[in-house]
Amino acid sequence: MSEGKAVVAILGGTGGLGTGLARRWAEAGYQIIIGSRTQEKAEIAAQALRELMQERGVAEVSVAAMDNVAAATAADIAALTVPFAHHADTLRSVKAALQGKILIDVTVPLVPPKVARVQLPEEGSAGQIAQNILGEGVNVVSAFQNVAAVHLQEGQGMDCDVLVCGDNKEARAKVIELVEAAGLRGFHAGSIANAAAVEAMTSLLIFINKQYKCHAGIKLTGLDH
Amino acid sequence: MSEGKAVVAILGGTGGLGTGLARRWAEAGYQIIIGSRTQEKAEIAAQALRELMQERGVAEVSVAAMDNVAAATAADIAALTVPFAHHADTLRSVKAALQGKILIDVTVPLVPPKVARVQLPEEGSAGQIAQNILGEGVNVVSAFQNVAAVHLQEGQGMDCDVLVCGDNKEARAKVIELVEAAGLRGFHAGSIANAAAVEAMTSLLIFINKQYKCHAGIKLTGLDH
Repeated sequence: MSEGKAVVAILGGTGGLGTGLARRWAEAGYQIIIGSRTQEKAEIAAQALRELMQERGVAEVSVAAMDNVAAATAADIAALTVPFAHHADTLRSVKAALQGKILIDVTVPLVPPKVARVQLPEEGSAGQIAQNILGEGVNVVSAFQNVAAVHLQEGQGMDCDVLVCGDNKEARAKVIELVEAAGLRGFHAGSIANAAAVEAMTSLLIFINKQYKCHAGIKLTGLDH
Repeated sequence: MSEGKAVVAILGGTGGLGTGLARRWAEAGYQIIIGSRTQEKAEIAAQALRELMQERGVAEVSVAAMDNVAAATAADIAALTVPFAHHADTLRSVKAALQGKILIDVTVPLVPPKVARVQLPEEGSAGQIAQNILGEGVNVVSAFQNVAAVHLQEGQGMDCDVLVCGDNKEARAKVIELVEAAGLRGFHAGSIANAAAVEAMTSLLIFINKQYKCHAGIKLTGLDH
């Protein structure tokens, strides 16, 4: 908190994407809370993150471990990184704790086994579902859906832009700050309805990764004319 | 036809996107048929294209003008560049003429006035609607939805990739050839269901263009690892 930076909770933060984001934000000086369904699982991920920060010579880190509800309660901003199957349940469990805050929804509504095929939910997108469940008291902002966990885990720059969607412009701007803190470029990309495009694009990237044996991302061009 | 290249019809080919594609493919040596609802409108666009090719010193060009049904009948491959409001009607009118051929669907299902907001149709995408209307006898391949007409009109390279979706891989490969002939990179991006991602992305690019006062495109990264 030395620079007054926000306390960021990562709900369902024990997987590849969650620990990748936690690592980036811890390095950037944010206070991190790893949330999980149980305190124990959260503590294992938090301990691993503390050790990684020590290895990398990051002196002052604040990494706590809590269950998801406690993490959402203690946080200024929360990110949600759970598989789509746990998305709605997790949101309902933290709804009260998130009122007045920003939720960064990283969820991609993949429907196994055909994860390389776009299968958007009836509501339009996971981001829209989150906004519907949490209600108007929470600013849902979708981001990071096209970034591969493997890229966040590596300690380097990534060649993938983050398209940031949400109904509230100030909330989007705060998330863009976190995107930049994670070492990526973030862009205002419209209302939460627009999360559909970014979530759907993940299935195309999965297809392209298989087809061309690569780890594809997307980048905006033409920004300077 | 000097190199045995396909005859390409551009249905609804009198607008910015249609004439832009026609110009690129004419320069690449394809025989072009401009299709429109009336022969007269098609002829005006065809004449403008012939004059442009003469200006640019392209010696041997073949540009015909026909109504949409005649154009679809005479073509080896057809591209559809009509506003979404005319999409289904035009497809029904050329259904018989396109059997056994490839239809390149360039349509983006924008719903004015909120064109910067993703509003995908119930069927999932314009590409899926086209496949549903035309039936299994036609290979629908969606492409070019993220490329701005203004970029196609300029005689230079464009910094925007084309994500090519369709259920038939060979048909996609033929469309990728045409993408490359137009001076762009084209990529296999999965089944026609995946057109939803690319069509939706156009609304995000429109939002980004307004927000950042630019002409944005997207490009794939990470292809070489």
